[in-house]
Amino acid sequence: RTAHALRLLATVSAMTTKTALVAVANGSEEIETVTAVDTLVRAGAHVTLASVEKELQVTASRGVKLVADLLISDASLRSKQFDAVVLPGGMPGAEHLRDSQPLMDLVKRHLETGKLIGAICAAPAVALASHHLLNDVKATCYPAPNFRAKLTSHAHIDDPVVRDGQFITSQGPGTAMAFSLALVEALFGHEQAEKVAKAMLVTLPAVSKR
Amino acid sequence: RTAHALRLLATVSAMTTKTALVAVANGSEEIETVTAVDTLVRAGAHVTLASVEKELQVTASRGVKLVADLLISDASLRSKQFDAVVLPGGMPGAEHLRDSQPLMDLVKRHLETGKLIGAICAAPAVALASHHLLNDVKATCYPAPNFRAKLTSHAHIDDPVVRDGQFITSQGPGTAMAFSLALVEALFGHEQAEKVAKAMLVTLPAVSKR
Ligand SMILES: [Cu+]
Repeated sequence: RTAHALRLLATVSAMTTKTALVAVANGSEEIETVTAVDTLVRAGAHVTLASVEKELQVTASRGVKLVADLLISDASLRSKQFDAVVLPGGMPGAEHLRDSQPLMDLVKRHLETGKLIGAICAAPAVALASHHLLNDVKATCYPAPNFRAKLTSHAHIDDPVVRDGQFITSQGPGTAMAFSLALVEALFGHEQAEKVAKAMLVTLPAVSKR
Repeated sequence: RTAHALRLLATVSAMTTKTALVAVANGSEEIETVTAVDTLVRAGAHVTLASVEKELQVTASRGVKLVADLLISDASLRSKQFDAVVLPGGMPGAEHLRDSQPLMDLVKRHLETGKLIGAICAAPAVALASHHLLNDVKATCYPAPNFRAKLTSHAHIDDPVVRDGQFITSQGPGTAMAFSLALVEALFGHEQAEKVAKAMLVTLPAVSKR
Protein backbone atom coordinates (compact mmCIF):
# COMPACT_ATOMS: atom_id res chain seq x y z
CA ARG A 1 0.00 0.00 0.00
CA THR A 2 2.85 2.42 0.84
CA ALA A 3 4.68 1.26 -2.28
CA HIS A 4 1.60 1.97 -4.35
CA ALA A 5 1.22 5.44 -2.82
CA LEU A 6 4.89 6.21 -3.47
CA ARG A 7 4.59 5.04 -7.08
CA LEU A 8 1.58 7.25 -7.55
CA LEU A 9 3.40 10.19 -5.97
CA ALA A 10 6.39 9.68 -8.27
CA THR A 11 4.10 9.61 -11.30
CA VAL A 12 2.28 12.77 -10.29
CA SER A 13 5.60 14.46 -9.52
CA ALA A 14 7.05 13.51 -12.92
CA MET A 15 3.90 14.83 -14.57
CA THR A 16 4.04 18.17 -12.79
CA THR A 17 7.79 18.85 -12.55
CA LYS A 18 8.66 21.55 -15.06
CA THR A 19 11.83 21.13 -17.08
CA ALA A 20 14.05 23.70 -18.76
CA LEU A 21 17.10 23.52 -20.98
CA VAL A 22 19.52 26.43 -20.73
CA ALA A 23 22.06 26.51 -23.56
CA VAL A 24 25.61 27.74 -22.95
CA ALA A 25 28.67 28.41 -25.12
CA ASN A 26 32.13 29.89 -24.85
CA GLY A 27 31.42 33.61 -24.57
CA SER A 28 27.92 33.31 -23.09
CA GLU A 29 27.10 36.06 -20.61
CA GLU A 30 27.59 34.38 -17.23
CA ILE A 31 25.18 36.53 -15.22
CA GLU A 32 22.40 35.83 -17.73
CA THR A 33 23.19 32.09 -17.85
CA VAL A 34 23.49 31.55 -14.12
CA THR A 35 20.58 33.79 -13.13
CA ALA A 36 18.25 31.78 -15.39
CA VAL A 37 19.40 28.42 -14.01
CA ASP A 38 19.38 29.53 -10.36
CA THR A 39 15.97 31.23 -10.51
CA LEU A 40 14.30 28.33 -12.36
CA VAL A 41 15.77 25.80 -9.88
CA ARG A 42 14.50 27.91 -6.96
CA ALA A 43 11.02 27.78 -8.54
CA GLY A 44 11.18 23.98 -8.65
CA ALA A 45 12.19 23.34 -12.26
CA HIS A 46 14.57 20.60 -13.28
CA VAL A 47 17.16 22.51 -15.28
CA THR A 48 19.63 21.03 -17.77
CA LEU A 49 22.60 23.22 -18.70
CA ALA A 50 23.66 22.10 -22.19
CA SER A 51 26.94 23.09 -23.85
CA VAL A 52 26.94 23.74 -27.60
CA GLU A 53 30.74 23.37 -27.56
CA LYS A 54 32.71 20.13 -27.91
CA GLU A 55 33.32 20.06 -24.16
CA LEU A 56 31.16 20.38 -21.08
CA GLN A 57 33.34 23.13 -19.65
CA VAL A 58 32.91 26.52 -21.25
CA THR A 59 34.50 29.89 -20.53
CA ALA A 60 31.82 32.55 -20.32
CA SER A 61 32.13 36.13 -21.57
CA ARG A 62 33.96 37.53 -18.51
CA GLY A 63 36.09 34.45 -17.88
CA VAL A 64 33.87 32.49 -15.48
CA LYS A 65 34.27 28.76 -16.16
CA LEU A 66 30.98 26.85 -16.12
CA VAL A 67 30.51 23.08 -16.43
CA ALA A 68 27.41 21.99 -18.34
CA ASP A 69 25.36 18.90 -17.50
CA LEU A 70 25.62 17.53 -21.02
CA LEU A 71 26.48 18.35 -24.60
CA ILE A 72 23.72 19.65 -26.85
CA SER A 73 24.66 16.83 -29.26
CA ASP A 74 23.83 14.24 -26.58
CA ALA A 75 21.62 11.54 -28.07
CA SER A 76 19.22 11.76 -25.11
CA LEU A 77 18.25 15.28 -26.19
CA ARG A 78 17.07 14.26 -29.65
CA SER A 79 13.67 13.14 -28.42
CA LYS A 80 13.42 14.97 -25.11
CA GLN A 81 10.84 17.73 -24.60
CA PHE A 82 11.45 20.58 -22.17
CA ASP A 83 8.86 23.05 -20.96
CA ALA A 84 11.24 25.89 -21.75
CA VAL A 85 14.41 26.43 -23.79
CA VAL A 86 16.53 29.39 -22.73
CA LEU A 87 19.23 31.17 -24.73
CA PRO A 88 21.54 33.53 -22.81
CA GLY A 89 23.29 36.42 -24.54
CA GLY A 90 26.92 37.47 -24.54
CA MET A 91 29.22 37.63 -27.50
CA PRO A 92 30.51 35.55 -29.14
CA GLY A 93 28.34 33.14 -27.13
CA ALA A 94 25.13 34.01 -28.99
CA GLU A 95 26.92 33.37 -32.32
CA HIS A 96 27.95 29.94 -31.09
CA LEU A 97 24.32 29.22 -30.15
CA ARG A 98 23.20 30.43 -33.62
CA ASP A 99 25.76 28.16 -35.30
CA SER A 100 24.81 25.04 -33.32
CA GLN A 101 22.70 22.84 -35.57
CA PRO A 102 21.53 20.53 -32.73
CA LEU A 103 20.49 23.53 -30.62
CA MET A 104 18.61 25.25 -33.43
CA ASP A 105 16.91 21.95 -34.33
CA LEU A 106 15.87 21.60 -30.69
CA VAL A 107 14.57 25.20 -30.58
CA LYS A 108 12.52 24.69 -33.77
CA ARG A 109 11.12 21.40 -32.48
CA HIS A 110 10.08 23.09 -29.23
CA LEU A 111 8.48 25.95 -31.15
CA GLU A 112 6.41 23.46 -33.13
CA THR A 113 5.20 21.75 -29.99
CA GLY A 114 4.15 25.01 -28.32
CA LYS A 115 6.90 25.21 -25.72
CA LEU A 116 8.35 28.35 -24.20
CA ILE A 117 11.47 29.95 -25.76
CA GLY A 118 13.45 32.48 -23.72
CA ALA A 119 16.23 34.64 -25.15
CA ILE A 120 18.10 37.61 -23.68
CA CYS A 121 20.61 40.26 -24.72
CA ALA A 122 22.33 39.28 -27.97
CA ALA A 123 20.42 35.99 -28.28
CA PRO A 124 17.06 37.24 -29.65
CA ALA A 125 18.77 39.05 -32.53
CA VAL A 126 21.82 36.88 -33.11
CA ALA A 127 20.52 33.38 -32.37
CA LEU A 128 16.75 33.57 -33.05
CA ALA A 129 16.24 36.36 -35.64
CA SER A 130 19.15 35.08 -37.75
CA HIS A 131 17.15 31.87 -38.20
CA HIS A 132 13.98 33.90 -38.99
CA LEU A 133 12.32 32.65 -35.79
CA LEU A 134 11.21 36.08 -34.59
CA ASN A 135 9.28 37.14 -37.69
CA ASP A 136 6.12 38.95 -36.56
CA VAL A 137 7.03 38.34 -32.93
CA LYS A 138 7.10 41.28 -30.52
CA ALA A 139 10.53 41.06 -28.94
CA THR A 140 13.37 42.99 -27.38
CA CYS A 141 17.16 42.53 -27.18
CA TYR A 142 20.29 44.36 -26.05
CA PRO A 143 19.83 47.96 -27.23
CA ALA A 144 22.71 47.98 -29.73
CA PRO A 145 21.71 49.24 -33.20
CA ASN A 146 23.12 46.19 -35.03
CA PHE A 147 21.09 43.82 -32.80
CA ARG A 148 17.92 45.90 -32.96
CA ALA A 149 18.06 46.07 -36.74
CA LYS A 150 17.59 42.29 -36.85
CA LEU A 151 14.25 42.40 -35.04
CA THR A 152 11.35 42.80 -37.45
CA SER A 153 8.95 44.19 -34.88
CA HIS A 154 10.03 47.26 -32.97
CA ALA A 155 6.85 47.89 -31.01
CA HIS A 156 8.00 46.59 -27.61
CA ILE A 157 11.73 47.00 -28.09
CA ASP A 158 12.29 49.33 -25.11
CA ASP A 159 10.75 47.09 -22.46
CA PRO A 160 13.16 45.13 -20.22
CA VAL A 161 11.16 41.91 -20.71
CA VAL A 162 8.66 41.18 -23.47
CA ARG A 163 6.34 38.20 -23.70
CA ASP A 164 4.63 37.35 -26.97
CA GLY A 165 3.05 33.92 -27.15
CA GLN A 166 5.78 31.31 -26.80
CA PHE A 167 8.57 33.89 -26.67
CA ILE A 168 9.99 35.71 -23.69
CA THR A 169 12.81 38.08 -24.65
CA SER A 170 14.88 40.49 -22.59
CA GLN A 171 17.70 43.02 -22.83
CA GLY A 172 20.82 42.28 -20.81
CA PRO A 173 22.55 41.46 -17.50
CA GLY A 174 20.59 44.16 -15.64
CA THR A 175 17.30 42.58 -16.77
CA ALA A 176 18.38 38.95 -16.28
CA MET A 177 16.55 38.61 -12.98
CA ALA A 178 13.30 40.05 -14.39
CA PHE A 179 13.70 37.76 -17.42
CA SER A 180 14.22 34.70 -15.25
CA LEU A 181 11.24 35.55 -13.07
CA ALA A 182 9.11 36.01 -16.20
CA LEU A 183 10.09 32.46 -17.20
CA VAL A 184 9.10 31.28 -13.71
CA GLU A 185 5.77 33.10 -13.98
CA ALA A 186 5.06 31.53 -17.38
CA LEU A 187 5.89 28.03 -16.14
CA PHE A 188 4.63 28.11 -12.55
CA GLY A 189 2.25 31.06 -12.30
CA HIS A 190 2.37 34.47 -10.70
CA GLU A 191 2.20 33.30 -7.10
CA GLN A 192 5.30 31.12 -7.43
CA ALA A 193 7.17 33.94 -9.20
CA GLU A 194 6.27 36.28 -6.33
CA LYS A 195 7.46 33.70 -3.81
CA VAL A 196 10.81 33.12 -5.55
CA ALA A 197 11.31 36.88 -6.07
CA LYS A 198 10.65 37.57 -2.40
CA ALA A 199 13.15 34.93 -1.23
CA MET A 200 15.74 36.45 -3.58
CA LEU A 201 14.93 39.98 -2.32
CA VAL A 202 13.74 41.10 -5.74
CA THR A 203 10.72 43.28 -6.39
CA LEU A 204 8.84 41.59 -9.21
CA PRO A 205 8.82 43.91 -12.21
CA ALA A 206 6.05 44.21 -14.77
CA VAL A 207 6.38 42.19 -17.97
CA SER A 208 5.03 43.80 -21.12
CA LYS A 209 2.61 41.44 -22.84
CA ARG A 210 1.31 41.64 -26.35
CA ARG B 1 62.91 53.27 -27.31
CA THR B 2 59.73 51.32 -28.07
CA ALA B 3 60.91 48.63 -25.66
CA HIS B 4 61.39 51.26 -22.97
CA ALA B 5 57.93 52.73 -23.61
CA LEU B 6 56.36 49.27 -23.43
CA ARG B 7 58.19 48.48 -20.18
CA LEU B 8 56.98 51.76 -18.73
CA LEU B 9 53.43 51.03 -19.88
CA ALA B 10 53.54 47.56 -18.31
CA THR B 11 54.76 49.05 -15.03
CA VAL B 12 52.07 51.72 -14.97
CA SER B 13 49.46 49.12 -15.89
CA ALA B 14 50.58 46.78 -13.10
CA MET B 15 50.45 49.71 -10.68
CA THR B 16 46.95 50.71 -11.68
CA THR B 17 45.26 47.37 -12.45
CA LYS B 18 42.96 46.54 -9.57
CA THR B 19 42.81 42.97 -8.32
CA ALA B 20 40.09 41.07 -6.50
CA LEU B 21 39.79 37.62 -4.99
CA VAL B 22 36.31 36.09 -4.96
CA ALA B 23 36.04 33.02 -2.73
CA VAL B 24 33.76 30.15 -3.65
CA ALA B 25 32.66 26.89 -2.00
CA ASN B 26 30.24 24.06 -2.54
CA GLY B 27 26.90 25.67 -1.77
CA SER B 28 27.89 29.25 -2.60
CA GLU B 29 25.08 31.29 -4.16
CA GLU B 30 25.89 31.25 -7.88
CA ILE B 31 24.19 34.53 -8.82
CA GLU B 32 26.11 36.35 -6.09
CA THR B 33 29.41 34.70 -7.01
CA VAL B 34 29.16 35.18 -10.76
CA THR B 35 27.69 38.71 -10.62
CA ALA B 36 30.66 39.86 -8.52
CA VAL B 37 33.24 38.32 -10.87
CA ASP B 38 31.52 39.49 -14.08
CA THR B 39 30.93 43.07 -12.89
CA LEU B 40 34.47 43.50 -11.53
CA VAL B 41 35.98 42.12 -14.77
CA ARG B 42 33.82 44.51 -16.80
CA ALA B 43 35.21 47.38 -14.69
CA GLY B 44 38.76 46.29 -15.53
CA ALA B 45 39.75 44.33 -12.44
CA HIS B 46 41.85 41.18 -12.58
CA VAL B 47 39.67 38.71 -10.69
CA THR B 48 40.81 35.43 -9.12
CA LEU B 49 38.08 32.93 -8.25
CA ALA B 50 39.46 30.82 -5.40
CA SER B 51 37.93 27.57 -4.18
CA VAL B 52 38.00 26.81 -0.45
CA GLU B 53 37.26 23.17 -1.28
CA LYS B 54 39.82 20.45 -2.10
CA GLU B 55 39.02 20.78 -5.80
CA LEU B 56 38.77 23.63 -8.26
CA GLN B 57 35.28 22.58 -9.35
CA VAL B 58 32.50 23.40 -6.93
CA THR B 59 28.76 22.87 -7.09
CA ALA B 60 26.98 26.10 -6.16
CA SER B 61 23.76 26.34 -4.14
CA ARG B 62 21.36 25.69 -7.05
CA GLY B 63 23.51 23.12 -8.81
CA VAL B 64 25.56 25.31 -11.15
CA LYS B 65 29.07 23.88 -11.48
CA LEU B 66 31.81 26.53 -11.38
CA VAL B 67 35.53 26.00 -11.91
CA ALA B 68 37.79 28.21 -9.80
CA ASP B 69 41.15 29.61 -10.96
CA LEU B 70 43.01 28.19 -7.99
CA LEU B 71 42.65 26.70 -4.54
CA ILE B 72 42.64 29.05 -1.56
CA SER B 73 45.47 26.92 -0.13
CA ASP B 74 47.65 27.73 -3.16
CA ALA B 75 51.11 28.81 -1.99
CA SER B 76 51.03 31.84 -4.32
CA LEU B 77 48.18 33.34 -2.26
CA ARG B 78 50.14 33.37 1.00
CA SER B 79 51.94 36.61 0.19
CA LYS B 80 49.64 38.07 -2.46
CA GLN B 81 47.69 41.27 -1.81
CA PHE B 82 44.37 41.96 -3.54
CA ASP B 83 42.58 45.28 -3.62
CA ALA B 84 39.37 43.51 -2.60
CA VAL B 85 38.35 40.17 -1.11
CA VAL B 86 34.75 39.13 -1.80
CA LEU B 87 32.68 36.52 0.05
CA PRO B 88 29.45 35.39 -1.63
CA GLY B 89 26.57 34.00 0.38
CA GLY B 90 24.56 30.84 -0.04
CA MET B 91 24.27 27.97 2.42
CA PRO B 92 26.17 25.87 3.23
CA GLY B 93 28.67 27.85 1.13
CA ALA B 94 29.12 30.62 3.71
CA GLU B 95 29.83 28.00 6.39
CA HIS B 96 32.54 26.50 4.19
CA LEU B 97 34.07 29.97 3.80
CA ARG B 98 33.89 30.46 7.58
CA ASP B 99 35.62 27.12 8.17
CA SER B 100 38.46 27.74 5.70
CA GLN B 101 41.55 28.67 7.69
CA PRO B 102 43.52 29.89 4.65
CA LEU B 103 40.61 32.10 3.55
CA MET B 104 40.04 33.61 6.98
CA ASP B 105 43.81 34.20 7.36
CA LEU B 106 43.75 35.99 4.00
CA VAL B 107 40.72 38.09 5.01
CA LYS B 108 42.37 39.12 8.30
CA ARG B 109 45.63 39.98 6.53
CA HIS B 110 43.71 42.15 4.04
CA LEU B 111 41.85 43.86 6.86
CA GLU B 112 45.15 44.75 8.54
CA THR B 113 46.52 46.25 5.32
CA GLY B 114 43.45 48.41 4.72
CA LYS B 115 41.99 46.48 1.79
CA LEU B 116 38.33 46.22 0.85
CA ILE B 117 36.24 43.31 2.15
CA GLY B 118 32.91 42.53 0.46
CA ALA B 119 30.35 40.07 1.84
CA ILE B 120 26.77 39.39 0.82
CA CYS B 121 23.73 37.40 1.98
CA ALA B 122 24.77 34.75 4.54
CA ALA B 123 28.47 35.70 4.37
CA PRO B 124 28.51 38.82 6.60
CA ALA B 125 26.84 36.94 9.47
CA VAL B 126 28.14 33.41 8.94
CA ALA B 127 31.67 33.99 7.61
CA LEU B 128 32.67 37.42 9.02
CA ALA B 129 30.69 37.94 12.23
CA SER B 130 31.44 34.39 13.41
CA HIS B 131 35.11 35.41 13.43
CA HIS B 132 34.25 38.69 15.22
CA LEU B 133 35.31 40.73 12.20
CA LEU B 134 32.18 42.88 12.10
CA ASN B 135 32.31 44.19 15.68
CA ASP B 136 31.27 47.86 15.61
CA VAL B 137 30.93 47.75 11.83
CA LYS B 138 27.70 48.95 10.23
CA ALA B 139 26.65 46.06 8.05
CA THR B 140 23.74 44.23 6.50
CA CYS B 141 23.04 40.61 5.53
CA TYR B 142 20.22 38.36 4.30
CA PRO B 143 17.17 39.36 6.39
CA ALA B 144 16.80 36.07 8.25
CA PRO B 145 16.54 36.45 12.03
CA ASN B 146 19.34 33.95 12.77
CA PHE B 147 21.73 35.84 10.47
CA ARG B 148 20.70 39.29 11.70
CA ALA B 149 21.21 38.27 15.30
CA LYS B 150 24.92 37.80 14.59
CA LEU B 151 25.43 41.40 13.51
CA THR B 152 26.31 43.65 16.43
CA SER B 153 25.20 46.86 14.75
CA HIS B 154 21.64 47.01 13.51
CA ALA B 155 21.57 50.64 12.37
CA HIS B 156 21.91 50.06 8.61
CA ILE B 157 20.55 46.54 8.46
CA ASP B 158 17.66 47.31 6.09
CA ASP B 159 19.72 48.85 3.30
CA PRO B 160 20.46 46.65 0.26
CA VAL B 161 24.14 47.66 0.30
CA VAL B 162 26.05 49.16 3.20
CA ARG B 163 29.56 50.58 3.13
CA ASP B 164 31.44 51.19 6.34
CA GLY B 165 35.16 51.82 6.00
CA GLN B 166 36.78 48.72 4.52
CA PHE B 167 33.53 46.76 4.50
CA ILE B 168 30.86 46.56 1.84
CA THR B 169 28.00 44.25 2.81
CA SER B 170 24.77 43.35 1.06
CA GLN B 171 21.62 41.25 1.39
CA GLY B 172 21.05 38.61 -1.30
CA PRO B 173 20.72 37.61 -4.97
CA GLY B 174 18.41 40.55 -5.72
CA THR B 175 21.03 42.99 -4.41
CA ALA B 176 24.05 41.23 -5.96
CA MET B 177 24.29 43.67 -8.86
CA ALA B 178 24.12 46.72 -6.57
CA PHE B 179 26.71 45.07 -4.29
CA SER B 180 29.06 44.38 -7.21
CA LEU B 181 28.70 47.92 -8.53
CA ALA B 182 29.44 49.28 -5.04
CA LEU B 183 32.69 47.28 -5.13
CA VAL B 184 33.43 48.76 -8.57
CA GLU B 185 32.72 52.26 -7.26
CA ALA B 186 35.02 51.74 -4.26
CA LEU B 187 37.85 50.43 -6.45
CA PHE B 188 37.46 52.49 -9.62
CA GLY B 189 35.32 55.51 -8.71
CA HIS B 190 31.79 56.61 -9.42
CA GLU B 191 32.28 57.34 -13.10
CA GLN B 192 33.51 53.83 -13.89
CA ALA B 193 30.65 52.31 -11.87
CA GLU B 194 28.17 54.41 -13.86
CA LYS B 195 29.80 53.28 -17.11
CA VAL B 196 29.69 49.58 -16.20
CA ALA B 197 26.13 49.86 -14.90
CA LYS B 198 24.99 51.54 -18.09
CA ALA B 199 26.54 48.85 -20.30
CA MET B 200 24.80 46.20 -18.17
CA LEU B 201 21.49 48.11 -18.36
CA VAL B 202 21.40 48.68 -14.62
CA THR B 203 20.34 51.88 -12.91
CA LEU B 204 23.01 52.56 -10.31
CA PRO B 205 21.38 52.38 -6.87
CA ALA B 206 22.35 54.43 -3.87
CA VAL B 207 24.73 52.88 -1.36
CA SER B 208 24.19 53.77 2.26
CA LYS B 209 27.42 55.06 3.77
CA ARG B 210 28.25 55.51 7.41
CU1 LIG C 1 25.21 40.86 -24.36
